[in-house]
Amino acid sequence: MHPAASQDVPERAAGFPDDLTLLVNDYLAQLRFAREPGVSGLQEAMHYSLLAPGKRVRPVLALATARAIGHDPREVLPLAAALELIHTFTLVHDDLPALDDDDLRRGQPTAHVRFGEDVAILAADALFAEAFRLVLSEQRGEPAHVLAALAALTDATGVNGLAGGQYIDVRGLAGARSVGLRCLHRLKTGALMRASVESVLLVHGFKGVALDEFRKFADELGLLFQIVDDILDVTADASELGKDTGTDARHGKVTYVSRFGLPWAQSLAEQTHAAARAALARAVPDGAAELEAITDFFLDRTS
Amino acid sequence: MHPAASQDVPERAAGFPDDLTLLVNDYLAQLRFAREPGVSGLQEAMHYSLLAPGKRVRPVLALATARAIGHDPREVLPLAAALELIHTFTLVHDDLPALDDDDLRRGQPTAHVRFGEDVAILAADALFAEAFRLVLSEQRGEPAHVLAALAALTDATGVNGLAGGQYIDVRGLAGARSVGLRCLHRLKTGALMRASVESVLLVHGFKGVALDEFRKFADELGLLFQIVDDILDVTADASELGKDTGTDARHGKVTYVSRFGLPWAQSLAEQTHAAARAALARAVPDGAAELEAITDFFLDRTS
Repeated sequence: MHPAASQDVPERAAGFPDDLTLLVNDYLAQLRFAREPGVSGLQEAMHYSLLAPGKRVRPVLALATARAIGHDPREVLPLAAALELIHTFTLVHDDLPALDDDDLRRGQPTAHVRFGEDVAILAADALFAEAFRLVLSEQRGEPAHVLAALAALTDATGVNGLAGGQYIDVRGLAGARSVGLRCLHRLKTGALMRASVESVLLVHGFKGVALDEFRKFADELGLLFQIVDDILDVTADASELGKDTGTDARHGKVTYVSRFGLPWAQSLAEQTHAAARAALARAVPDGAAELEAITDFFLDRTS
Repeated sequence: MHPAASQDVPERAAGFPDDLTLLVNDYLAQLRFAREPGVSGLQEAMHYSLLAPGKRVRPVLALATARAIGHDPREVLPLAAALELIHTFTLVHDDLPALDDDDLRRGQPTAHVRFGEDVAILAADALFAEAFRLVLSEQRGEPAHVLAALAALTDATGVNGLAGGQYIDVRGLAGARSVGLRCLHRLKTGALMRASVESVLLVHGFKGVALDEFRKFADELGLLFQIVDDILDVTADASELGKDTGTDARHGKVTYVSRFGLPWAQSLAEQTHAAARAALARAVPDGAAELEAITDFFLDRTS
């Protein structure tokens, strides 16, 4: 078989590494934030959104990356958990009436429905701050490496990351020729996915050519996740997905499906999956079973 | 004169160090956040709130602290600016209709009035992220010291800082015996004021007994600022203050004035001012002209 062809059609790996999800969930469940009297209600709202059931794809991606470079995943649990806190922060704000106005998330009422808009806004802000606090107080590593990992996190969350991506989304700028869908998703989804891989490599002081291959892998993975997200918004049902469906069409959003049609979006998802697996094979020539499984799951997921 | 008496009734120092305000304003004005196409509008909203006229008390406090321990204030400009980004982030969220619902801030329409709620929420989120990014990319110092300074910033912004304080405020918990006004203000105002002093000391690796005296100084200073804020909400007029007045009464908030009356609040402000000056004198026995001037300004300010 031609080597390139073997990369283009990789063998499917085992299922999603649920053992890593359990590790993350156990770690998240024991997090306590409130020290002061009077703020336990805020912590309750934070836990409500943070501990709602989920695959924890970003933290699991981080733990799997640690294992792919020969480290014990538990060493980066604070960093991995911080990714989930940041992700949850953005979900809570994105769901607000002034933004996407969603009522259902992870199979339960959204934070503002449950606690009111004021508490939802503040709980999300607090999750964001506590994400950094968690890394600063719990993540081991050489100080310069921890700083580099934090820089990757902040790159992914600011103007050129999550906040910017959501801005492009709510202002409907992805349809503009100068911006485009790819930019929207690189910021809104891709940035944090990339940080999930990159921050773990940086906190371990990992350098060299393979770092760039890991970045390429993470970028393709983020794109894959978003394309499949767009597909699921029209093909899945809300009870399975755990959030409202058809919201993209309701908000008149440009998506891979609305722009190019479902068959093309599905084909693009497959190409992106192959590109991610190829980059991963270059980053870890000996194979990285869990990262391969995550990549396959991103293509095959139904929720 | 009795030494204690000389501490209790300190001589008034020169005026507010406006030269440091200029330094901060010049630094803030040259900050650019947007790299990606499509997010320049988000940057515009960030600049709108960030660059609105202000004394920049937190960054100036940081720069004055640097000078008080013998350093060039310009060395900590990224850290000082980050404090203003974080402060602005909280102002924009606090002003939202779901929270304090204020229309006027720093003499101009609030961010959500000017740009809409969606953009205001995201611009504030982005300011928060970019604050950390600024420190991580621009602040010089030993990596372990930069990490310690960042920890001080995050302590001040999370559940046990700004977000928690605002939660206590909007939920009206400050009237509860178990929480109290002092807790509200330690979190909502005091935490970031303390971080403005503490983070500068930490980034310079400053240690020893004086660190605790600086912390006591900063805590009294934060309390003083808030008591005077409560006083100004009933005594100042909106055009001078640059924000709505009477908002505390309108929201039925417990303040030092509503709880104890104006004369008592004014007396407490004077006592707190004296305590701050006394702690400062212990922290810097040779004197720190700018920090003294800031402390006096906090008592005497009319806006």
